[in-house]
Amino acid sequence: MSKKINAFYAQSGGVTAVINASASGVIETARAHRDQIGKVFAGRNGIIGALTEDLIDTSRESASAIAALRSTPSGAFGSCRYKLKSLEENRIEYQRLIDVFKAHNIGYFFYNGGGDSADTCLKVSQLSKKTGYPIQAIHIPKTVDNDLPITDNCPGFGSVAKYIAVSTREASFDVASMAKTSTKVFILEVMGRHAGWIAAAGGMASDEDTPIPVAILFPEIKFDRKKFIKKVKDSIKKFGYCSVVVSEGVRSGNGRFLADQGLKDAFGHAQLGGVAPVVASIIREDLGVKYHWAVADYLQRAARHIASKTDVEQAYATGVSAVQMALAGKNAVMPAIIRSSDQPYRWKIGEAKLTRVANREKMMPRNFITTDGFGITERCRRYLSPLMRGEDYPAYDKNGLPKYARLKNIAVKKKLDESFEI
Amino acid sequence: MSKKINAFYAQSGGVTAVINASASGVIETARAHRDQIGKVFAGRNGIIGALTEDLIDTSRESASAIAALRSTPSGAFGSCRYKLKSLEENRIEYQRLIDVFKAHNIGYFFYNGGGDSADTCLKVSQLSKKTGYPIQAIHIPKTVDNDLPITDNCPGFGSVAKYIAVSTREASFDVASMAKTSTKVFILEVMGRHAGWIAAAGGMASDEDTPIPVAILFPEIKFDRKKFIKKVKDSIKKFGYCSVVVSEGVRSGNGRFLADQGLKDAFGHAQLGGVAPVVASIIREDLGVKYHWAVADYLQRAARHIASKTDVEQAYATGVSAVQMALAGKNAVMPAIIRSSDQPYRWKIGEAKLTRVANREKMMPRNFITTDGFGITERCRRYLSPLMRGEDYPAYDKNGLPKYARLKNIAVKKKLDESFEI
Repeated sequence: MSKKINAFYAQSGGVTAVINASASGVIETARAHRDQIGKVFAGRNGIIGALTEDLIDTSRESASAIAALRSTPSGAFGSCRYKLKSLEENRIEYQRLIDVFKAHNIGYFFYNGGGDSADTCLKVSQLSKKTGYPIQAIHIPKTVDNDLPITDNCPGFGSVAKYIAVSTREASFDVASMAKTSTKVFILEVMGRHAGWIAAAGGMASDEDTPIPVAILFPEIKFDRKKFIKKVKDSIKKFGYCSVVVSEGVRSGNGRFLADQGLKDAFGHAQLGGVAPVVASIIREDLGVKYHWAVADYLQRAARHIASKTDVEQAYATGVSAVQMALAGKNAVMPAIIRSSDQPYRWKIGEAKLTRVANREKMMPRNFITTDGFGITERCRRYLSPLMRGEDYPAYDKNGLPKYARLKNIAVKKKLDESFEI
Repeated sequence: MSKKINAFYAQSGGVTAVINASASGVIETARAHRDQIGKVFAGRNGIIGALTEDLIDTSRESASAIAALRSTPSGAFGSCRYKLKSLEENRIEYQRLIDVFKAHNIGYFFYNGGGDSADTCLKVSQLSKKTGYPIQAIHIPKTVDNDLPITDNCPGFGSVAKYIAVSTREASFDVASMAKTSTKVFILEVMGRHAGWIAAAGGMASDEDTPIPVAILFPEIKFDRKKFIKKVKDSIKKFGYCSVVVSEGVRSGNGRFLADQGLKDAFGHAQLGGVAPVVASIIREDLGVKYHWAVADYLQRAARHIASKTDVEQAYATGVSAVQMALAGKNAVMPAIIRSSDQPYRWKIGEAKLTRVANREKMMPRNFITTDGFGITERCRRYLSPLMRGEDYPAYDKNGLPKYARLKNIAVKKKLDESFEI
């Protein structure tokens, strides 16, 4: 083939404040190697865009638009929750991918996602061997859950951590002001269904200069109502108030999510609430003090306005490295963040084999959680601190709102006759 | 009396991201007039500090600590929810105030709060006439609800508005990325039990450059389930998704809060949830699409990290003006923000009589809300825009967290023999 080989890039799973920074890294680096890489086609709504031949021509975007992605949250090309089955189980999907890749001369596959996506990327990486179609698949790490193995941390996590720590500190100051006659307990629900990394960040709200009583409920620690109430009571006694950071994934003794309380409305319909109101009810029943609760939900992972500078830099760097790995002939790998020192913080990008990444979850080590199960250890602080460090503010417009990029997202002309139902 | 007259300052009601900026304005201006004002004593936990003779000696704080208050959220001296009755109903409390003022040679009373507090301040201002004790009472406006009359806007509101608009824009970008295969509706619950000012700010997330389908549920507009569902459905059809900003104070046709759904847990205990999960249930029942919901709660009013520059400046300026008014011999007044032009935005501090401020609520004008009841008009945008404009970032520490001031809050030695039970 004399034509230059094109690249496919897609965003997968839940988006983050910095996944577009990775996209920016991929596209800018590919543009810097025009002699070796043709165009970068992005999948509209992730891998679905590849299956349906709905490709976005990123070469139609200006250099400034691609640069602006670095400070724009969310997935600029759309993401999806769609997991490819194995080649044996669903050969038709892989055949379709190859048809689309072939039609558009795609030889590089960049997949930006978490653990499930790493598995998809691994499967695509095996297509060369199994089908003979030459494709190199590189996974770019992304997940607010911070649960990918090998890499020291995951792009997307540092910014959520910063948001949760800042929010917990701010709300705690608020509660401290009100505690004398009003609210004594503030509860913040955060993401993390399996691993407590995000909840742990709430503990960073407190430090020597600014001591704040924060009780964390980790998914790794079974909820013990008695111990929890004692913890909150002791904090109120000492500080006058208590802040609670609760992970959505906290489970009670019977293994069920604490959030799953079988709530019914006045008509008997089941209600799915968050875990924060459940914890609030427990506070009310057992302590009878005034409480407030918040659920951060998407706000936490979309909060580009308070993104961590470290996180933005790493997200961009993994995008850059992914392209460099592809150009070096690599396949089935992922750029991983390697930490060589806590203080001063030093990191570089290394290479992880996808076989060692896919379908493995990294939980919080037990020694990152204090013995009582409600706090973070010094070791955890040393780990978290540099990931949240530095600010990287977006530009603001005349109404006081951040200027986030919206791309043109112009579709590549379809070349295949058949459409594909997903 | 040859001794210089001291001042009393207290924070009242719910705190904000910028009420400490007003405190900073008061204290710095008093310090600049040492020839006329003695010390500024702050009430620990608001007016309760005056009643219990628990006064904080702000002269023990360094100039840099008082300057740092400008970028510290919450109430540095503690606030309270405590409303004084009228002089006729509770003479004993007013007598106690006079005893404390007299003992500490306090002749200036600065009260930093909302509508209820303006009423308290008005009552204190009448003490001179009614009891002969010379006191000048100046109210300093503060409320995230933005519902005080006379003043064009209330310090505290602009920053909440900015937070809600930024958060709505960010979360909407997130939902837009996910809508193809996952979440199609995002619901954000915001404060504002009576007036929809904060909810209105959600509408600012969308503009010509960044069109976002935002459906606002105002407390001023009765909730109409059918119309609401149609609005959301239309947005999904056109944009693929819809963002809903719902005020905690939204009421249904029967006049009850929409949040009040008579929820019961598995044991039959009543559950008090927010309104966001109720709206989510309505979406699920009537549309069956995937949703996410967030409750901002204290995060919105404590978010100093994304405070509006206009708001910070105005909060500080009202503190400065309050002292100047006191020195000019005024009583029973409030510094009010007067807007003389939208574009360019021009404002100055004027003077409002407390009799015209106390116990009056300023609701959203109907012409600020679109005819369909779900959006904001151009007129509303012109009003809100300058209030949210500009950033005023706090300093950050080595862990990537904002450095917020904690004062020493050293108590003034008590002079009265009797304690006072509140």
